[in-house]
Amino acid sequence: MSRLFIINPNSSETVTQGIDHAVTPLRALGVTIECLTLAEGPPGIETQAQADEVVTPLLRLAADLEDDAAGFVIACFGDPGLHALRDRTAKPVLGIQECAVMTALTLGQRFGVIAILPASIPRHLRAFGAMGVTNRLAGDRALGLGVAALADEDATLARMIEVGGLLRDTDGADVLIMGCAGMARFRAPLEHALGMPVVEPCQAATATAIGRIALNQSHKIRDSHAG
Amino acid sequence: MSRLFIINPNSSETVTQGIDHAVTPLRALGVTIECLTLAEGPPGIETQAQADEVVTPLLRLAADLEDDAAGFVIACFGDPGLHALRDRTAKPVLGIQECAVMTALTLGQRFGVIAILPASIPRHLRAFGAMGVTNRLAGDRALGLGVAALADEDATLARMIEVGGLLRDTDGADVLIMGCAGMARFRAPLEHALGMPVVEPCQAATATAIGRIALNQSHKIRDSHAG
Amino acid sequence: MSRLFIINPNSSETVTQGIDHAVTPLRALGVTIECLTLAEGPPGIETQAQADEVVTPLLRLAADLEDDAAGFVIACFGDPGLHALRDRTAKPVLGIQECAVMTALTLGQRFGVIAILPASIPRHLRAFGAMGVTNRLAGDRALGLGVAALADEDATLARMIEVGGLLRDTDGADVLIMGCAGMARFRAPLEHALGMPVVEPCQAATATAIGRIALNQSHKIRDSHAG
Amino acid sequence: MSRLFIINPNSSETVTQGIDHAVTPLRALGVTIECLTLAEGPPGIETQAQADEVVTPLLRLAADLEDDAAGFVIACFGDPGLHALRDRTAKPVLGIQECAVMTALTLGQRFGVIAILPASIPRHLRAFGAMGVTNRLAGDRALGLGVAALADEDATLARMIEVGGLLRDTDGADVLIMGCAGMARFRAPLEHALGMPVVEPCQAATATAIGRIALNQSHKIRDSHAG
Amino acid sequence: MSRLFIINPNSSETVTQGIDHAVTPLRALGVTIECLTLAEGPPGIETQAQADEVVTPLLRLAADLEDDAAGFVIACFGDPGLHALRDRTAKPVLGIQECAVMTALTLGQRFGVIAILPASIPRHLRAFGAMGVTNRLAGDRALGLGVAALADEDATLARMIEVGGLLRDTDGADVLIMGCAGMARFRAPLEHALGMPVVEPCQAATATAIGRIALNQSHKIRDSHAG
Amino acid sequence: MSRLFIINPNSSETVTQGIDHAVTPLRALGVTIECLTLAEGPPGIETQAQADEVVTPLLRLAADLEDDAAGFVIACFGDPGLHALRDRTAKPVLGIQECAVMTALTLGQRFGVIAILPASIPRHLRAFGAMGVTNRLAGDRALGLGVAALADEDATLARMIEVGGLLRDTDGADVLIMGCAGMARFRAPLEHALGMPVVEPCQAATATAIGRIALNQSHKIRDSHAG
Repeated sequence: MSRLFIINPNSSETVTQGIDHAVTPLRALGVTIECLTLAEGPPGIETQAQADEVVTPLLRLAADLEDDAAGFVIACFGDPGLHALRDRTAKPVLGIQECAVMTALTLGQRFGVIAILPASIPRHLRAFGAMGVTNRLAGDRALGLGVAALADEDATLARMIEVGGLLRDTDGADVLIMGCAGMARFRAPLEHALGMPVVEPCQAATATAIGRIALNQSHKIRDSHAG
Repeated sequence: MSRLFIINPNSSETVTQGIDHAVTPLRALGVTIECLTLAEGPPGIETQAQADEVVTPLLRLAADLEDDAAGFVIACFGDPGLHALRDRTAKPVLGIQECAVMTALTLGQRFGVIAILPASIPRHLRAFGAMGVTNRLAGDRALGLGVAALADEDATLARMIEVGGLLRDTDGADVLIMGCAGMARFRAPLEHALGMPVVEPCQAATATAIGRIALNQSHKIRDSHAG
Repeated sequence: MSRLFIINPNSSETVTQGIDHAVTPLRALGVTIECLTLAEGPPGIETQAQADEVVTPLLRLAADLEDDAAGFVIACFGDPGLHALRDRTAKPVLGIQECAVMTALTLGQRFGVIAILPASIPRHLRAFGAMGVTNRLAGDRALGLGVAALADEDATLARMIEVGGLLRDTDGADVLIMGCAGMARFRAPLEHALGMPVVEPCQAATATAIGRIALNQSHKIRDSHAG
Repeated sequence: MSRLFIINPNSSETVTQGIDHAVTPLRALGVTIECLTLAEGPPGIETQAQADEVVTPLLRLAADLEDDAAGFVIACFGDPGLHALRDRTAKPVLGIQECAVMTALTLGQRFGVIAILPASIPRHLRAFGAMGVTNRLAGDRALGLGVAALADEDATLARMIEVGGLLRDTDGADVLIMGCAGMARFRAPLEHALGMPVVEPCQAATATAIGRIALNQSHKIRDSHAG
Repeated sequence: MSRLFIINPNSSETVTQGIDHAVTPLRALGVTIECLTLAEGPPGIETQAQADEVVTPLLRLAADLEDDAAGFVIACFGDPGLHALRDRTAKPVLGIQECAVMTALTLGQRFGVIAILPASIPRHLRAFGAMGVTNRLAGDRALGLGVAALADEDATLARMIEVGGLLRDTDGADVLIMGCAGMARFRAPLEHALGMPVVEPCQAATATAIGRIALNQSHKIRDSHAG
Repeated sequence: MSRLFIINPNSSETVTQGIDHAVTPLRALGVTIECLTLAEGPPGIETQAQADEVVTPLLRLAADLEDDAAGFVIACFGDPGLHALRDRTAKPVLGIQECAVMTALTLGQRFGVIAILPASIPRHLRAFGAMGVTNRLAGDRALGLGVAALADEDATLARMIEVGGLLRDTDGADVLIMGCAGMARFRAPLEHALGMPVVEPCQAATATAIGRIALNQSHKIRDSHAG
């Protein structure tokens, strides 16, 4: 039976579990969702080089899954391999960054992004430029937390609220995007603390993918309507 | 039991039936969908004045439905009352124009729009400008068919293929949006004739709304996470 | 004798009187100006729903005035019914938001907007996007004053100077727009306090309309040159 | 008595007479208008070098006129010296290119420009970019007529209609700007032949200037409200 | 002695020789230039997947060269690995696509791109969007030639002139970019046939890199000024 | 023997010496560079009027130099006469503002500009708009120092670091442009103090010009390939 594969391109099982938890509410829609960890990925993707380097093994994994796939979600904010995989398959392929942005654009007028690291921001800006949505961006600010602090949920949430507050009050955002995968547990408390919608990107992409599968809608017209 | 209400703001039952047919594949996802006709609407919405004038009765209808609503889709390309209804409810509210664009942006790099009438194009351009996506627009071209011709399915499809071909070959579109509601039956033949993805906007918005409902994700944070 | 009708789409006679006062200096140009209150409008237009809902009665009023009209100004920042009315008449139709922006673009390089309410800002941003002028926007900030404070002229001016100063110093604006109708009395003190030009939108639109009338210049070419 | 000075920065009296004719309908508004020829200008301004070179004598002339000036219009499409003169005086200073664009933006959604020479187009594009309105530009096309043809009114009008038709039908313009000074006589026949509004830039700038004078509205706040 | 390394990320020695020939005029500037072929690359880079997949070996090669490098040029239109390599080294790293665009922006107002394949165009558009220069793009058109035709120099040049003529006459380009590496021999004949400047991207990037080396100017400030 | 002429359009020999010092590292590339002072220029160019007024003598000087010129750099941030001189000669003509921007765009994602005076900023914004790169601009902030303070190198550097820090931390710049000519001595200390690349515009333009000369690449195709 065909499934929607969500591929975490880093090798952290903890992140994959976080993604799996994030998409739990979407399982009610009836599409089978399977979250996978890319064994060849680095423990975390922090640089453009790391993002580029996962593409080769990610394409290999996706090719192995092709026959069983109803669609694919690439679950790394940065969408590594998104367009490459779209070249390879006619099944729906969604990226969590792209879908988070498209979702945010229907929830508010100016979106703010909570980045994990300052170094991610130029990559985000290039991506938003490629998407042509720069005029809708309010701001992109980094948590700037070390590993220890990120492991502390209370400290992380407190910092997210602080950064989100700056995006709202200083930059004028009226919707936020969490610039990371696997932190869905913070969405509701962030929304309530800030009084504004927050997009968890794995949720955004998975919901989008399920709709595409149901509609048999893909980026590539080949045999997608056949049979 | 709460339902997703799709409101056709014109008074044509035929259009509502077309919308109902369009979203049939999404019923498999388990959310109850109900398509409604706005009795007070004009037979068709062709001008900005008509679009503006349906907002008052549309808001009234939505208020009546509020208690039973899981969410709303406004099913007129032009999204009349979209932001007004978002002011009034914390349930997800999606517009077919906005969702069609966001969907198209993940299916191709430059979208083309098939408008019904030439007079619709300036309205579309204002909407795309408000969305901040003008740089992704390849072109917007009108069918320019009279009522008789539109009633002839073969002639309409032939003209759609002709206009879509111009959007693809002259304007550089690699994904198309049907700028109307209720013509889902043309999606597959258009995709095959032109070899490119075609977005039917009622499908795009309804799929988006279903994801929002499943994720309890809305534009307004009030009591949406409560209980 | 034909007149330029300025329609205040809210039902507040005080606002209409403020508009009338604002355009007083333009009466020297010889075009008869008549300021009207839309009886069916709400006391104030604060939401998108209210803006949309005035369109129907506004169009009806304009239709009643058509024979005597040299042109129309819609005097609500938000320009409700602007494009709808343009569909209906070949007489010049100007909106105070649109004209304020076009005026500001010739007075400075980056315009700042003083909004009444925070909730107005997303509407403004959609309008500026539709106008394609987002790159010229320095910032949009709200007074955030309650009714009592707005009734206090000194307090209102003090807050306007404060917000204008933020737009100038933090956001880089070199021209300001008052995002409301009927506050022309604050224009000169604001300009002097901040040392920068301030556009009062009713003045901007009325001056523009007078020029169009003199030039017999309209958006619609039908019989406008006839006779 | 103070007057609105319209300065033609080329030395052609014929062009100045054309400008004078263009603004005739605006004389009814009661502001005294005086059209002047810049003796030091070239017979026509066709290159950026010529445009730059008229600035020095133009500023000198304006300085001589300052005491009698209610305002200034620089009547060359390209707006030479516009910002320089704004630095020098607190009286309203308007350029015909800038005002033509701002006028067109309220008459249609996408403006087309009829240039005299192909070499003017890159200059126009730089100016539209500086104005931040590129997304509203449908196209800019040149007449490409030699001096002899331009002297033939029928041939010129025929070519204008041809170029305007391309801007409308191929580029999607719904309003046109005449990219030259002194051709107001073609406005009405062009509008009727093409069924769309046409902006004559000297009219647009002069109408704007008259409004500014009546409102005592300028780009520079110094003594403009004094007395 | 340190050298500027130009890395051809495909494995075609013929392309590397074409690049070497292209940059010959720049050898007079005294910086030693060495053109290398990435052995692990595909024979040609035609898809996003191929572009992504060369990054890993390209970074490895650059790391091996680091000690001897004065700078790097990545010689594939698409700039694979550009930002990844910039993360890894403080030596100047230039991409031929990015430099071709920046060069074109100083040679004309609107640039046209001659792509090899239609499938390259969406990739180009994403890159131009990420660069934020979409408003300067006139058009991007593909040669659409098969391998045999590309091997025929006369046929290729003829087709380039044809496509360049469309970019100039239909799209309004006044400068062209060759969207490929190793075809410098066509630059002069194209310029003469079309009467407009043509940018060969390997030349553009290598000239840029030489300037950066001479100025000790890099994207990363670490030890670049030390010693 | 032909030379690259760098023309300082103000009459300050001190500035010319600063420019000469700035380009010293580029002399190793073998192109003869000669820095000239425009005797007719003002002591400094602070207003648009001054910028416009130097064009006439600058063009005259360039015409006198034409026979000996390999190319021209106009060394005033504001690029006075850039397009005028390009109309007059087929030799490479580069402006320091334009080249500084193009250089910065390859060194970071968002550029910040250190202006000398607040009044320069609107001119910069118009120029960046004409270049179509506004979406890449992080901010533009003025030193706002008087003549005495500018003469004090330590005070100037300290203020540059302060302003650069605001551009980096408040505005999000990751590369800086010095918005002036002749201050190359501050580049290295600024880069080290702020940890980010700094573009000195005379260096940027001269490096660019040298590449163009070596490649025989110009904006105008006439006889540039001849002989």
